[in-house]
Amino acid sequence: MRNVEIIGYGSYVPEETVEFDGQIRHRVPKGSSVTQISMAVAAAREALAKASLDITDIDCIVSASAVDHQPIPCTAALIHEQIAKGTDIPAMDINTTCTSFVSAFDVVSYLIDAGRYDKVLLVASEKASVGLNPKQKESYELFGDGAAAVVLSKCEDDSAGIIYAKQMTWSEGAHDTEIRGGLTGMYPDVYSECPEEFCFDMNGLKVLKLAGRKLPGFFKGFLSESGYTMDDIDMVVPHQASKALGMIMPLLGVPKDKYIDIVPEYGNMVSVAIPHALIWAIKNGKIKKGDTVLLIGTAAGLTANALLFKY
Amino acid sequence: MRNVEIIGYGSYVPEETVEFDGQIRHRVPKGSSVTQISMAVAAAREALAKASLDITDIDCIVSASAVDHQPIPCTAALIHEQIAKGTDIPAMDINTTCTSFVSAFDVVSYLIDAGRYDKVLLVASEKASVGLNPKQKESYELFGDGAAAVVLSKCEDDSAGIIYAKQMTWSEGAHDTEIRGGLTGMYPDVYSECPEEFCFDMNGLKVLKLAGRKLPGFFKGFLSESGYTMDDIDMVVPHQASKALGMIMPLLGVPKDKYIDIVPEYGNMVSVAIPHALIWAIKNGKIKKGDTVLLIGTAAGLTANALLFKY
Repeated sequence: MRNVEIIGYGSYVPEETVEFDGQIRHRVPKGSSVTQISMAVAAAREALAKASLDITDIDCIVSASAVDHQPIPCTAALIHEQIAKGTDIPAMDINTTCTSFVSAFDVVSYLIDAGRYDKVLLVASEKASVGLNPKQKESYELFGDGAAAVVLSKCEDDSAGIIYAKQMTWSEGAHDTEIRGGLTGMYPDVYSECPEEFCFDMNGLKVLKLAGRKLPGFFKGFLSESGYTMDDIDMVVPHQASKALGMIMPLLGVPKDKYIDIVPEYGNMVSVAIPHALIWAIKNGKIKKGDTVLLIGTAAGLTANALLFKY
Repeated sequence: MRNVEIIGYGSYVPEETVEFDGQIRHRVPKGSSVTQISMAVAAAREALAKASLDITDIDCIVSASAVDHQPIPCTAALIHEQIAKGTDIPAMDINTTCTSFVSAFDVVSYLIDAGRYDKVLLVASEKASVGLNPKQKESYELFGDGAAAVVLSKCEDDSAGIIYAKQMTWSEGAHDTEIRGGLTGMYPDVYSECPEEFCFDMNGLKVLKLAGRKLPGFFKGFLSESGYTMDDIDMVVPHQASKALGMIMPLLGVPKDKYIDIVPEYGNMVSVAIPHALIWAIKNGKIKKGDTVLLIGTAAGLTANALLFKY
C-alpha cells in the first residue's frame, strides 16, 4: 500500500443550471467572468481550508484536467498564479482526459510515498460548456462545468493509502471522443471558419460498445491482481460518463447500492466527474474514513483507469 | 538514487530549414503531411529500435510536450494510435511546458523504481512553427520543430539512475510566455478573427530578467541539496532557450566546455530541446555511459527544472 491520505477536499459547481428532460447540468453562462481557472481556485481554497492548511504548506500543485484553459503555460501554472503567486511551489499537469484525476492521484502517490513531496494539491477543472455542439444532442445534453480538488498527504501508518491501481489505453477509440481544436479560454465562435472543429465530438454508441467489450476484462484483471473482491469494496465511484452508468455497473458486477450515480443532478463533468462524485459521497456520508473505495472510469483514448484506496 | 536507465533514444527533425542571420531552424513547411504526432512516432520508433525492443515490450507511453495536437484525447493516446494500436499499453501526458521531458523523466522514475512499470516510452514532440507570430521577430526566429524519445528501464544496480531532481514554479511569469488559444493540429489562419491570440507570445526580456533573478538561487539550492558540485558533473544539457544561453550558463557557474549549445543549429525546440540536445550529445560522443549529466531549464510558468542523473 502506498500510504497517502486525502486530508482536504473541495468542489465548485456553477449555480446556473440548464435542464434536459429533468436532467440537471451546471454550466457557466457565456459572458460570465467565471473561468476554468477561477473554478479550480474555488475548489482548491475549499480543500486547503478543510485541511486547515495554507498554500505555503503545499509542496506541489498538480492540475488533472482533460482540456486546458490555454496551450501555454500549463494549467497548473495558471492556478498557481491565482493561489500561490510569490511562492516557488512546483506546478505540473497530468492528463489522461476524463480519468486525469485518477492517473494523477496514482502517479503522485509514488512521489509522496517515496518522500519527494509531503503534501500535494490536486485539482481537476473543466469548462466543458465552451465546446459543446448543439447539433450533437447526446453530448450537448450531457456535460457540466465545475472543479474538484483534494489535498494529498503522506500517511504515517496503514490507516489510509492506495491499495492497487491500473490503467490501460486502447487507441482503436482515439477518434470516438475528441475535440480537434481550441481550448476553454475562448469560445469557438471567435474561430469563424470551422467552429465545429473546436467542439466536442463523440460517437457515444462506439464508445459504449468499445467500453462494454474492454471494461469487464480490465476490471476482472484488476480485481484478481489486487487480491480484492467486490465484497471487500465499500463504495465504487465511477466516472459519471452518461445515463448508461446503470447499464455498465452490472456488467462489472457492481451491486446497485454500491456505486455513486449523480448523473441526473450533474451530468458528465469530464475530469471533474470522479473527484466531484467522490467529494459528494464523502460530504453525504456515503464514504467514511477507513472505507475501501474504488475509483473507476473510461476516458477518451479509449483509456480505462481504476484505483482502489483506503479512505 | 532511483535506478532508471535510458536504454534507447531517437530523435526527429524536419529536413526543411529556414535561416535567420546564420541561425538554422528546422521547420515543417505549411501544407506538409508531417504532424506533431508523426514526428513523435518517428522518434519513438528510432528509440525502440536502439533499445532492440518492440512496442509490446513497453509498459507505459508518456507524452511530455508543451503544446498538444488537439485538446481531446491526450497526445499520448494519439501517439499510441500510430504505434501501439491493438495493445492495451496505458498512455498519459505530463506537462510543464518546455521542461515537460525533465518532469516526466523525474516523475516516471518513481513509478519504475517502485516496480509499477519496467519499461516506459517517453516522447516529446512539438510543431512550434504552427503558432509563430511574424510580428514578434525574437520568437519568430527562435523556434524549431521536432521530436525526441527515450526508452526508460529499471536498472538493477547503481550503474545508472537519477541522483537528484527539483522543480520550482514562480507564477509572476505566467503571462511572459504564452499561447492563449489553439493547438498544433490546425494553423491559426483558420481562426480569422484574432489569429494572434493563437500565436506564441513572449516577452523575452521579462523572461530573461525573471530567470536571471531566480535561477542562480534555484541552482545553488539544487547543488547543495544533492551534495554534488560542478566538478562532479560531466556534462550539462540546458534547455536551448535562446542565444542568451552563453550569458546564463556562466551565471550558474557552468564552465564553457561543460554544456551543450546547439541553438545556432536547431534553435529552441520547446519541450523537445532538452531531450534532443541530450540525444545529440550522446550521438556525438559528448556524453558516455557512466557520465553524470545535469538536465536544467526554465519553462513558461515560470518554471525551473533540474535533474541530475548517471547515464
